[in-house]
Amino acid sequence: MPVAHLPAGLVIGLDLGGTKCLGVAMEITPAGEVEVRGECRRATPEGAGPIIDVMAEVAAVLVEDLGRPPVRLGVGVPGLITRSGVMRASPNLPGVFEVDIATELETAVRARCPWIVLEGLTVDNDANCAALAEWAAGAGRGVDDLVMVTLGTGIGGGIILGGRAYRGSHGFAGEFGHMVVDPLGDLCPCGQRGCWERYASGSGVARLAAAAGMSAPGGGALRSEDVVAAAREGSPEACAVMDRFAEWLAIGLVNIANLFDPEMIVCGGGLVAAADLFLPATRSRCAELLYASAHREHPRIEVASSDHRAGAIGAAVAAAMS
Amino acid sequence: MPVAHLPAGLVIGLDLGGTKCLGVAMEITPAGEVEVRGECRRATPEGAGPIIDVMAEVAAVLVEDLGRPPVRLGVGVPGLITRSGVMRASPNLPGVFEVDIATELETAVRARCPWIVLEGLTVDNDANCAALAEWAAGAGRGVDDLVMVTLGTGIGGGIILGGRAYRGSHGFAGEFGHMVVDPLGDLCPCGQRGCWERYASGSGVARLAAAAGMSAPGGGALRSEDVVAAAREGSPEACAVMDRFAEWLAIGLVNIANLFDPEMIVCGGGLVAAADLFLPATRSRCAELLYASAHREHPRIEVASSDHRAGAIGAAVAAAMS
Repeated sequence: MPVAHLPAGLVIGLDLGGTKCLGVAMEITPAGEVEVRGECRRATPEGAGPIIDVMAEVAAVLVEDLGRPPVRLGVGVPGLITRSGVMRASPNLPGVFEVDIATELETAVRARCPWIVLEGLTVDNDANCAALAEWAAGAGRGVDDLVMVTLGTGIGGGIILGGRAYRGSHGFAGEFGHMVVDPLGDLCPCGQRGCWERYASGSGVARLAAAAGMSAPGGGALRSEDVVAAAREGSPEACAVMDRFAEWLAIGLVNIANLFDPEMIVCGGGLVAAADLFLPATRSRCAELLYASAHREHPRIEVASSDHRAGAIGAAVAAAMS
Repeated sequence: MPVAHLPAGLVIGLDLGGTKCLGVAMEITPAGEVEVRGECRRATPEGAGPIIDVMAEVAAVLVEDLGRPPVRLGVGVPGLITRSGVMRASPNLPGVFEVDIATELETAVRARCPWIVLEGLTVDNDANCAALAEWAAGAGRGVDDLVMVTLGTGIGGGIILGGRAYRGSHGFAGEFGHMVVDPLGDLCPCGQRGCWERYASGSGVARLAAAAGMSAPGGGALRSEDVVAAAREGSPEACAVMDRFAEWLAIGLVNIANLFDPEMIVCGGGLVAAADLFLPATRSRCAELLYASAHREHPRIEVASSDHRAGAIGAAVAAAMS
């Protein structure tokens, strides 16, 4: 099934994370198939200038390997990104504020490799890119109304509406993690109480477990991985924590379904490696909690494809569609 | 300022409420101005068949008054409406389930008035219509990304994204009232606990006041109007209730802003007659609570234009844009 609206061509996608910058060279075929042609990875340095330089380097390596064709370049970065490609703030890149990534990266690419013919450059939030990857080549292939929820340390979100990324009026849509689901709940670093990501994320699992009296196997800080491992070994208290997590996840997903009425919600991020421990309970709780449940279609709730290049692929898709 | 995407022409809009069916005949000028040319109102009868007949009658009166030109017809109805115009369920029309309004109304119009040339017929949720009215001719004129929140007995919602109504994959988007903001909160008739409309609606004001120990001036059930009147007279307990209402309203509006990043949120519904008592507090609380508040643009929060014909105008706009 070809994906509508996905134009054929060669694109480069970069996924900037807190520890690494991963790039892919990608061809979108006339049939709408996504084919990765090359991959390049570098460590993410500290500071805005070095980060821009590393992104330009990764892009140059990939374009060189393709034989220097004209390309579009897409970048996915964590944080609040304006529609013109300015990173306002980023939780994973400390000290990086108000960086005009689009302009600076274009300047860096032209300075480093004047032979690159850049047909376009887009900068997008990394969760939007993850959503585009699922839509173009993953669990939500061709699904026109799709919401992506990334369950990592926090919760990110990407939105596809009518077969296009929906970024909001200023570029900041999809901040699902900071939806308040308990006004008297735990304090969030964002300043609010009871943000969804206090409960339904990796750090949320650890927090729910600590509140239930669990402690880390070797001492130190309890991590979600410890809770998942204990649940797999049949620990009743760990299983109870995963059940509570499943319930909190359902509450937020139902809110998303009541607001967006998507055809599909795709759950990604590190926690979905343990989806077998919580997703069945989350799905059945969502079916109960959805407004007017008996009178309507329900969104499908699926797990993201696990490709480690999904962020970079999505950035390339964003560039192709710009 | 003409409104983009709003095609010129003659349209009929019907707003079906629990007590009355109000219709307008409307011209959209080439400059994108909305001009009401006629108005007709009938009481809403009981039962699906009589309701369809009354809608056909109102439409016929309006088309006749215009001199029988070809028209598009738009209908706004409360409840869950599919994208093909089937009313799945409606809280304000007891006993009305699974009615194919689009098909039945077209049949009724053709039977009653075979001379009507119907160029199109759309059926939409009434809150979507309210949003379209604000976008075409009200507080949000020309604002491309706009969310409408109607604060009545419950809370309804309409969404305009990219200058078009966003209805969701099945037609059920914008059910803001059933966003859970307190999982251990008051039980909602929908089956969930802590739905936003338990707190931030007209019935929510009455509930917050009863919880604070207020009682109705003449005995009986306390209404939001009683609380508003007492607050206007300076009652400290009524003012405290309105402050709590303002806080609950802010929590949900911030969630909407974090998810949709709209340019504007328009608040409508009966409660906005008392906006002076709560909106300043709601606005300032929203500015505090919004995620990464210091690093981003904030949505404007405005009061809907008070035209009693807004629902019908919006239904006509929906028809014009279909």
